Amino acid sequence: MINQEYKDMLGAKSVIRELSEYATARGKEIGYENVFDFSLGNPSVDVPKEFTEEMIRLLQEEDTMTLHGYTPSLGNQKYKEAIAASLNRRFGMNYSAEHIFPTTGAAGAIAHAVRAVTKPGDEMIAFAPFFPEYRPYVGGAGVKLSIVPADTDSFQINFEKFEEMLSGKVSAVLINTPNNPSGVAYSTATLEKLSTILKEKSKEYGHTIFLISDEPYREIVFKGADAPYVSKFYDHTLSCYSFSKSLSLPGERIGYVAVNPACEGSDVIVPMCGQISRGTGHNCPPSIIQQAVAKVCDLTADLSVYETNMNIIYDTLVELGFSVVKPGGTFYIMPKALEDDSIAFCKKARDYDLIFVPTDGFGAPGYFRMAYCIDTDKVVRAMERLKKFVKEVY
Amino acid sequence: MINQEYKDMLGAKSVIRELSEYATARGKEIGYENVFDFSLGNPSVDVPKEFTEEMIRLLQEEDTMTLHGYTPSLGNQKYKEAIAASLNRRFGMNYSAEHIFPTTGAAGAIAHAVRAVTKPGDEMIAFAPFFPEYRPYVGGAGVKLSIVPADTDSFQINFEKFEEMLSGKVSAVLINTPNNPSGVAYSTATLEKLSTILKEKSKEYGHTIFLISDEPYREIVFKGADAPYVSKFYDHTLSCYSFSKSLSLPGERIGYVAVNPACEGSDVIVPMCGQISRGTGHNCPPSIIQQAVAKVCDLTADLSVYETNMNIIYDTLVELGFSVVKPGGTFYIMPKALEDDSIAFCKKARDYDLIFVPTDGFGAPGYFRMAYCIDTDKVVRAMERLKKFVKEVY
Repeated sequence: MINQEYKDMLGAKSVIRELSEYATARGKEIGYENVFDFSLGNPSVDVPKEFTEEMIRLLQEEDTMTLHGYTPSLGNQKYKEAIAASLNRRFGMNYSAEHIFPTTGAAGAIAHAVRAVTKPGDEMIAFAPFFPEYRPYVGGAGVKLSIVPADTDSFQINFEKFEEMLSGKVSAVLINTPNNPSGVAYSTATLEKLSTILKEKSKEYGHTIFLISDEPYREIVFKGADAPYVSKFYDHTLSCYSFSKSLSLPGERIGYVAVNPACEGSDVIVPMCGQISRGTGHNCPPSIIQQAVAKVCDLTADLSVYETNMNIIYDTLVELGFSVVKPGGTFYIMPKALEDDSIAFCKKARDYDLIFVPTDGFGAPGYFRMAYCIDTDKVVRAMERLKKFVKEVY
Repeated sequence: MINQEYKDMLGAKSVIRELSEYATARGKEIGYENVFDFSLGNPSVDVPKEFTEEMIRLLQEEDTMTLHGYTPSLGNQKYKEAIAASLNRRFGMNYSAEHIFPTTGAAGAIAHAVRAVTKPGDEMIAFAPFFPEYRPYVGGAGVKLSIVPADTDSFQINFEKFEEMLSGKVSAVLINTPNNPSGVAYSTATLEKLSTILKEKSKEYGHTIFLISDEPYREIVFKGADAPYVSKFYDHTLSCYSFSKSLSLPGERIGYVAVNPACEGSDVIVPMCGQISRGTGHNCPPSIIQQAVAKVCDLTADLSVYETNMNIIYDTLVELGFSVVKPGGTFYIMPKALEDDSIAFCKKARDYDLIFVPTDGFGAPGYFRMAYCIDTDKVVRAMERLKKFVKEVY
């Protein structure tokens, strides 16, 4: 019989997708340039030209069977070596290629990391505000996900609630910094405290609590932000990365899990990921993309537009009296709505062709998310519309 | 804690991989041209030049954000339309784009198809000889896989055993034609009988038994073979395809599930696959590869070498007195070993630098598999060595 669980999931329409569909339909009516769509987190800057050049070179010069042949089951060696060298150089780590498992983006990375350090029936903890896809990512491995309520002052970690919720059943903790949807990066102080608690509790419970760190926005960090490399703080860290945002390559599905060399099981976790792939149908990211990214993994797209946009939006929000934490990175910002019901707020904004996402689904009701990966001139025009909206409605 | 189940899997070394590693090591000693390595099923012919040209054109001409941006969660529309049109034209089907779910190769396709039509705890049936990866593919969905013993006369289906093993717990049946490892294609008569039994038993048990048809070798079919399109015979068929072999693109992870429009749930299975992806970290095959294959999906690499090689090997085997069924397609052949213990046989062959794979792991002990996706001149030289081996040892 058709699987009822997956069939039932079809009923639950994604709020973000509905909003985005609304924006597209509205764009057809009044011109898409007049719809201020802050709903979708799609990169808005070109891939670096070096990536395109390397792709064309590979296609023109390489033997097609090497270029398009099966990747070894634990990934392309040059890609793994390039990633390890880049992380070591930039963050003072000591990875070797054997600690890097290539994956289809961060989604693939988390799918493997979760299965490697949990078993069905275990529990994991994440922190609000959180990326809603964590529920299927963790649930798909048969693991229960609990969410620690947000620290709404700073969008760092609500440690009091975290300590209350930790138990011996928790195998792993999942964090996301810089954060979608808040844009906030976890500070040195936050990561130090998190590490201290995880060490103490691992000792108390008699087993290692692993840290799975989801970092697709790691390269989008703004001036003055305190956004250190997570794995520096806690040995038992699996860093999950995607080049979707830093190289503007979301459709090409390329990322990795990097296992801290001091992590428990660091000698077996990457080979285990190769076994996990067999059960999920993963089988490595695309060969040509691994080879091209191996060449350009130290580059990024021109990410400066995100910081420019953030500053314009942040200043306007403050001027208008919004309560908002200044993002340290990403292309998101998460102000408090001007009424308790943020869904109602976003509906009213929509009448002004401002497409905002209420953050109820991110575990933080009362706020809304703006994804500012759009052209700066549109951001400027949107701010005028936002002023009009706030003046007329609130 | 580290997941013990996946860790334990590391102990079980793949026979094929061990043999392939032996062949590589031996090649370093005596020159790889002198090792007759029939162990690995890697395509040995170039990708069609039209694929490479289309890739370069996309990279040079298309907007990079469209080219490399997120694929819609149910796949690139042009790719889906191209696949449906190609299948309809070639096999007289009536698919529309909505029946096609793009996947990362056949592994990804089977991972989705299994989850769509079973639930954890269900049972599935496959037929020996079978691709050993079916165990993790099906087991990864929490489903029990039973294997019907081989019909060793023809490597069609042992229907007597199949009917004995069918029960009300079986949600789906998994077939692979043309078959790895036997090279045999299921005939019209076989598929008609299979369909009749599935219809009868579905009625008897009061629920549809789905047919998952794994067809990565569908385009490699030899002259005179009776190798019809499976989905023509049974409505409730999910066809799993990969371009790995037909376009020589195994590393680029591109394939699809095609749901027969008359299949139970055909309106929801593709959207359900989008939900299944969320739990496995799948998220569509690479964007640029979907776009390039959309253009060339009716082409194949020059596959004629496989038939040339098959004929040389088949004739030699018959001449040497091997019992062997003539393949209808693929790049595999599966003769009976010259002693009951095929592992011992393959070890003795190895002393002659002939690398064959015993088929015990494929559910058919006593046979061995030769993958003849290698150059024809090497096949010719290997046959001389095979003659010497048989003459001296048996």
